[in-house]
Amino acid sequence: MSDPWIEDPYFIPAGAGSRHQIFPGVEIRTTPGERMMLSVVTFEPGSVVLDHSHPHEQMGMMVSGRLEFTIGDVTRVLGPGDLWRIPGGIVHRVRALDGPAVALDVFHPIREDYL
Amino acid sequence: MSDPWIEDPYFIPAGAGSRHQIFPGVEIRTTPGERMMLSVVTFEPGSVVLDHSHPHEQMGMMVSGRLEFTIGDVTRVLGPGDLWRIPGGIVHRVRALDGPAVALDVFHPIREDYL
Repeated sequence: MSDPWIEDPYFIPAGAGSRHQIFPGVEIRTTPGERMMLSVVTFEPGSVVLDHSHPHEQMGMMVSGRLEFTIGDVTRVLGPGDLWRIPGGIVHRVRALDGPAVALDVFHPIREDYL
Repeated sequence: MSDPWIEDPYFIPAGAGSRHQIFPGVEIRTTPGERMMLSVVTFEPGSVVLDHSHPHEQMGMMVSGRLEFTIGDVTRVLGPGDLWRIPGGIVHRVRALDGPAVALDVFHPIREDYL
């Protein structure tokens, strides 16, 4: 009760959120809003998110490090500030390259499996 | 036509997007998806976003620097990795503190005024 950050619904400090390890070396911290969900993703070097898809729309931004990102049949190496947008149902995968990486994803609607 | 980044709809390089100066010293670069919009916001030191509200839900994350962020009647000083969530219709304002700052906002639905 003494932590002022938990006394309002508006702000979430860095490192908080619901923790899920989605693949070896890949951890997410998720925060739901009303109709969107933020997911801060940390990748260990060489970790991978295998091909998958979901009906939710996904957009995101690289925060630090480098990722090889494949959406549909397009592959790019991304660095800080680069963005992506993945329509629902499109297969995508990710591989962390030569060091750790951090990305921010956002989903619409909320991913109930990541609450 | 020779830029591979414009040959697919999935990836947007850092610094691209639709540019809008929304207040003195505050610039955004926006990228629409289907039902969400990303907005990379750069603040010059001391710049402010005055009290405003919109029906769109807004969530976001500090990328670098420090911001004094007020949502409703709650004010916090935010640094890298801190998150916010603003339900539609809630008044909010922002002030950049001792240096430049960068934040990522996401809106649902798309803000037509930022296309």
